Amino acid sequence: MNNVLSDLEVAHLLADAARKAILPHFRSSDLSADNKWTKGFDPVTIADRAAETAMRDLLAQHRPEDGVWGEEFGRVDGASGRLWVLDPIDGTRAFLSGTPTWGVLIALSDDTGLLLGVIDQPYTGERFIGAGGMAELVARQERRALKTRATQTLDHAILFSTYPGVGSADERAGFERVSETVMLTRFGMDCYAYALLAAGHIDLVIEAGLNAYDIQAPIAVIEAAGGIVTDWRGGPAQLGGRVLAAANPTLHKAALELLRVTPE
Amino acid sequence: MNNVLSDLEVAHLLADAARKAILPHFRSSDLSADNKWTKGFDPVTIADRAAETAMRDLLAQHRPEDGVWGEEFGRVDGASGRLWVLDPIDGTRAFLSGTPTWGVLIALSDDTGLLLGVIDQPYTGERFIGAGGMAELVARQERRALKTRATQTLDHAILFSTYPGVGSADERAGFERVSETVMLTRFGMDCYAYALLAAGHIDLVIEAGLNAYDIQAPIAVIEAAGGIVTDWRGGPAQLGGRVLAAANPTLHKAALELLRVTPE
Repeated sequence: MNNVLSDLEVAHLLADAARKAILPHFRSSDLSADNKWTKGFDPVTIADRAAETAMRDLLAQHRPEDGVWGEEFGRVDGASGRLWVLDPIDGTRAFLSGTPTWGVLIALSDDTGLLLGVIDQPYTGERFIGAGGMAELVARQERRALKTRATQTLDHAILFSTYPGVGSADERAGFERVSETVMLTRFGMDCYAYALLAAGHIDLVIEAGLNAYDIQAPIAVIEAAGGIVTDWRGGPAQLGGRVLAAANPTLHKAALELLRVTPE
Repeated sequence: MNNVLSDLEVAHLLADAARKAILPHFRSSDLSADNKWTKGFDPVTIADRAAETAMRDLLAQHRPEDGVWGEEFGRVDGASGRLWVLDPIDGTRAFLSGTPTWGVLIALSDDTGLLLGVIDQPYTGERFIGAGGMAELVARQERRALKTRATQTLDHAILFSTYPGVGSADERAGFERVSETVMLTRFGMDCYAYALLAAGHIDLVIEAGLNAYDIQAPIAVIEAAGGIVTDWRGGPAQLGGRVLAAANPTLHKAALELLRVTPE
């Protein structure tokens, strides 16, 4: 491993490169050509691939012994046993719709677990980082520590999920048991909801059917900010599937009670 | 009327003042103190009132003969017959959740109809403007004309609504008739969805139970960008209620067919 740059510095390089690759395609006029992008040759795919390629090139240069697992180009393990997990555009539907709530996800793990995570929103210029017990937001006009909320009961909690359908009928029913008890439920934010949780603005995110590359960066950011992310039985969520992210242990326990009875 | 400033220049002054009044309260740490804001003494209300007061003060100075109708402090008609309609924070739930998808809404009308509208998102720094047949986005790093999409069929359309519940059971059923036929349905954007429609990123917004101050600015922006906004029977939507906003006449007609059968 080339130690000229720290892992976190490498992660910043990747996020910078992804921004540069993606932003020219966001809200591009090609998006209006619906005949074009329903045929698969769409700006999201172009931006997705360009960003992952740019990040892989940087990893080949700065971390040649590490493995890479990206949403677009699959997994290659490395000699080091360390693995970078990349989702160049999490929230492609948000991207297509022009909302600034998709994100670039970057995570690094070794056999001890997650080492760092980055959730980057290129258009708003917000970068949410969790690494080595430190969590911070670096934005255009501010830089501050991230800390999750202290909300103690579900009836004071704000809950997010990307889409009201959630997943299977059982998964939707599980989500709705929590949704019925919270103060406010909102939809439509993809990875940005996890960033809001880490930043102390909301309390819970509940989703199903996630991939590993959707959730590893959020886990690293949220845990560094004081929150907890597990599956719906309280086990590890690092490989995706059903995910419960909570601002603190008390709230996590209360939501888990309502989710854990969901059939497999 | 004091003609030193144009109406549009006055509208910019109002939006600037609202940004200044609101931004210190957005994502403020007080929001974490849930015991505080469930008692009604909340940062949203403080920001809402401060922004409307700042805008009213500017109107008293620059347009003393015009009327003002604001969400927070009600309606006062003026000698000119012209009326400024203000919603200092449209999307208070989005504001509470920390998402950058709420907005400041400013509209001006006379007895001929709407003269201008502004949808401002202070955190992202985006200002969507419609006035005198001109529609534009003024943002941090760009300034460009707004133009709605040319999508011709519902099965290629992107539809937004703020919340899946929409309104009454009949209203929800009406919404779902459209939702089932479109390519993509997304939730959770409040006034920001109308801005995305004007900017050519999405095709349809369908909502119910709106107030006049929720919709007048969006109508002015969307119509100046080439779109159409009516109620669910094809009549005027300026006073709120059930709203259908569409990118173009063809799409508007197709969605209206599915909505107009909704019982009153």
